[in-house]
Amino acid sequence: MEIYKFAYQIIAEAGKVIRDSIDEEIQIETKSNPNDLVTNIDKETEERLFNQIMSTYPEHRILGEEGHGKDIQDTSGVLWIVDPIDGTLNFVHQQENFAISIGIYIDGEKYAGFVYDVMNDKMYHALAGKGAWLNEEPLKPLKDTELKTSLISTNPLWLTKEKLSGIYVPIVDNSRSTRAYGSAALDFANVAKGITSAYLTMRLQPWDFAGGLIIVEEVGAVVTNQLGEQLNILEANSILIGNKAIHNELLNEYFLPHKPLLEQIHTERFRGKS
Amino acid sequence: MEIYKFAYQIIAEAGKVIRDSIDEEIQIETKSNPNDLVTNIDKETEERLFNQIMSTYPEHRILGEEGHGKDIQDTSGVLWIVDPIDGTLNFVHQQENFAISIGIYIDGEKYAGFVYDVMNDKMYHALAGKGAWLNEEPLKPLKDTELKTSLISTNPLWLTKEKLSGIYVPIVDNSRSTRAYGSAALDFANVAKGITSAYLTMRLQPWDFAGGLIIVEEVGAVVTNQLGEQLNILEANSILIGNKAIHNELLNEYFLPHKPLLEQIHTERFRGKS
Repeated sequence: MEIYKFAYQIIAEAGKVIRDSIDEEIQIETKSNPNDLVTNIDKETEERLFNQIMSTYPEHRILGEEGHGKDIQDTSGVLWIVDPIDGTLNFVHQQENFAISIGIYIDGEKYAGFVYDVMNDKMYHALAGKGAWLNEEPLKPLKDTELKTSLISTNPLWLTKEKLSGIYVPIVDNSRSTRAYGSAALDFANVAKGITSAYLTMRLQPWDFAGGLIIVEEVGAVVTNQLGEQLNILEANSILIGNKAIHNELLNEYFLPHKPLLEQIHTERFRGKS
Repeated sequence: MEIYKFAYQIIAEAGKVIRDSIDEEIQIETKSNPNDLVTNIDKETEERLFNQIMSTYPEHRILGEEGHGKDIQDTSGVLWIVDPIDGTLNFVHQQENFAISIGIYIDGEKYAGFVYDVMNDKMYHALAGKGAWLNEEPLKPLKDTELKTSLISTNPLWLTKEKLSGIYVPIVDNSRSTRAYGSAALDFANVAKGITSAYLTMRLQPWDFAGGLIIVEEVGAVVTNQLGEQLNILEANSILIGNKAIHNELLNEYFLPHKPLLEQIHTERFRGKS
């Protein structure tokens, strides 16, 4: 519990620092492409969290989106997987609807997950095996739903891709309605809270899902890639999460019929790559 | 100003009534299709607003989503266009991210617009020619942006339709990123606040856009249908709103090249129909 409380505290503090500086000028740089942005706030927040964790727990290891621990190859010991600002486009354009995401794993086992919706001061958090909460309020176990009466969340970009549209178009078409919020960590939190019943996307990095994974599993969501395989917390992967019934429906009726295509995509993009 | 203050007050009160009863069981019925829902709260809220307006201003007229004023054919006098709950699917599934929307027109001229994000207690409001506000805070004039560095909002469903996908897919593909929030009134408010730079959708009813229209125009947004024509506040239409530059870019580079298709859709679906 000591690490859990410490994590909660430094995440809440980091969020307050971001809120207090949200009106200041942001310095923006591009990373892998013109829409992959990073700001001084992403970097400063990761640095702040890194320094606090290291000074309290020097034996812990940290994998962060903005550069820390890129050489980490195994999950031994206490591993913090950190996204200082998940939803950077929202942060840059909206100054809201972004989150700090942290997942903590001990010898590869889930320990604790945090997704902090900074501007709304909503902390989603879970202690593996003990429950999940939004601030002080316990999150309820998910109820089963079917696609045709469910809201789902995805990135509309996948519907524009020639091969993928054959998978994604029928899902969107057969859902009750589709949402797109622009933060993977909050998409996990939204499934945990019941805002949406499922979330599916083609590619997330470990820091995008490591915190949210522990939270949604704690309320009974099923978390796999789009081939139904478990996620490896050190590797990028495709994502399919939802309550048990809708996960089963999406996996078996919409994704697995395209198994050869999905196998090919996963082999090309994810397997053997960190 | 008297009508403006009165409207503000009854909308805020109606929102409080909804918040106070949000945890009670909701009664849900379907309307035109299995995903077109109405609840007792939609009906009770419209009835409440109708009674308050009628008892204070018996000479005013009211066009409401849930049945009032369906015979209204002209815009003479003071006309209230009311959506008691815009974003009913969000209301039913999320118990948040819905809005009360009201536009008030006097002899067909814009007078005042209100979009009330009920659960977040955020009142977007505008007095035509005098400004627009979020609660007490003035909303700033919109800055010009281009599609490739903008967040836009639409319903992913349009990307699944064979003919329409030819228009919508390139827009989503060329945007910086696309959002889908599930409430047209809040989509207008989001453009007014700068959360997104443009909002486009194939079909809204007058009560979906009558309030938001006045708010976004007050901060400099351009509001038309997808053929660049002005909206008639008594008729359903397609929607294209955004800051001046992105509206111009979307209209001329993405919609008007498909003018014959769009003309056909508008003739079949909207023209001559209320």
